[in-house]
Amino acid sequence: MRYALGLEYDGTGFMGWQRLPAGATVQAAVEAAVSKVAAAPVEVVCAGRTDSGVHALCQVVHFDSPVERAPRAWALGVNTLLPDSVAVRWCVPVAADFHARFGARARRYRYRICNRMLRPGLERRFLAWERRPLDAGAMHQAAQALVGEHDFSAFRTVHCQAPHARRNLHAIRVWREGDEVRLEVEANAFLHHMVRNIVGSLLPIGRGERPVEWIAELLAGRDRSVAGPTAQAAGLLFLGPRYPRAHGLPEEVSA
Amino acid sequence: MRYALGLEYDGTGFMGWQRLPAGATVQAAVEAAVSKVAAAPVEVVCAGRTDSGVHALCQVVHFDSPVERAPRAWALGVNTLLPDSVAVRWCVPVAADFHARFGARARRYRYRICNRMLRPGLERRFLAWERRPLDAGAMHQAAQALVGEHDFSAFRTVHCQAPHARRNLHAIRVWREGDEVRLEVEANAFLHHMVRNIVGSLLPIGRGERPVEWIAELLAGRDRSVAGPTAQAAGLLFLGPRYPRAHGLPEEVSA
Repeated sequence: MRYALGLEYDGTGFMGWQRLPAGATVQAAVEAAVSKVAAAPVEVVCAGRTDSGVHALCQVVHFDSPVERAPRAWALGVNTLLPDSVAVRWCVPVAADFHARFGARARRYRYRICNRMLRPGLERRFLAWERRPLDAGAMHQAAQALVGEHDFSAFRTVHCQAPHARRNLHAIRVWREGDEVRLEVEANAFLHHMVRNIVGSLLPIGRGERPVEWIAELLAGRDRSVAGPTAQAAGLLFLGPRYPRAHGLPEEVSA
Repeated sequence: MRYALGLEYDGTGFMGWQRLPAGATVQAAVEAAVSKVAAAPVEVVCAGRTDSGVHALCQVVHFDSPVERAPRAWALGVNTLLPDSVAVRWCVPVAADFHARFGARARRYRYRICNRMLRPGLERRFLAWERRPLDAGAMHQAAQALVGEHDFSAFRTVHCQAPHARRNLHAIRVWREGDEVRLEVEANAFLHHMVRNIVGSLLPIGRGERPVEWIAELLAGRDRSVAGPTAQAAGLLFLGPRYPRAHGLPEEVSA
């Protein structure tokens, strides 16, 4: 029997999503909890692997269980066994051909930057920090060059294992809210470090060190080595994937 | 020379604001940092003492320093010496008669409740949790009985050291945002545990266990022992005090 779980987590204390030989990862915590409820070893497949220190509002995973349980029993049981910083949002039984990763039509991320002279304290786990004033309007304008299907090699880490770098970026928006600059982006899928590398190249534009056209040049050049550095992990939140409505998943991950 | 500092903090790792013989407190952390920049022992006085696990968006303190420094030097210097979870928002030189506690005309708090079957993970440090569905409209209506000058003994902890329990509650609002119920309240001053005890008595009304009129009855009865329990610390955020504009403090703490 296949189930989908919606999960949220504060990634601060984890070495990212993916299971490692040693060290706390979200995947290991989730698999330990699910396996205990299933009373058998269970592996989970996620919609979007997040890096060390990156958070999720609605990560989606699927898993196959040798036992059937009510969705409510999975949700409550797994939740009780997870660390405090990870929580189940919902559990839904899905068809055997549902796949959390390959079935996702889109993925959405948010990036938050505390833009003031002094570093953040209250929400430091969820904010990057840039002390120099940012022009959010220029960043937004520059980012529009990324919309559409492109080869995103300029914003891909050398460690990325994807077979090619073509992705379809549906929408990207940058705006200011008080002393915070926010970015939201949706694409069919993302390369490793793609959001943080895009932010890292928008920052010099926001600071006025590079012209608005620089992003388009970087994209066309496909050369990671000339683009901006990878922005801090703390500011990044995986809002979640979107699946076709036919799967019957909650509204927050359907489109 | 007297200075005012605006501070924000994540109270999770602290045993509250007030300095204690042992244990990490925000006051001790701030005094250690200020004293180091002043190169002399300095005590700070705050606008509103927060309890263990309670957060602040803009706590205000004043202190007297034997040395004069530029506000920017205080802000940057103190910030560097504070733990990650505490940050300076600003520093302003003030007149010798400015008093962070006695000079505040009003104080504002926010309380956030995650209202769903499953506990929060992502923002667990900043959310209380109530699994049973809450009627935010009924809670809002009930809370209006608290507006005005009253004896708030029903919502005062036995450990409260204030000489009397009369406070002037300026406004209180309860509303729902998705699966979150939020409360914001402003008063001239608050008794110890007053916000959390008000929330603790609004919760049974929100759950439908008590009628909307219950709050007015509790207020009139002045008996702490019949009111609801103290709500969780994590949900509480001290938004900050308000001072007369003449002090020249930033807009966020002026009114």
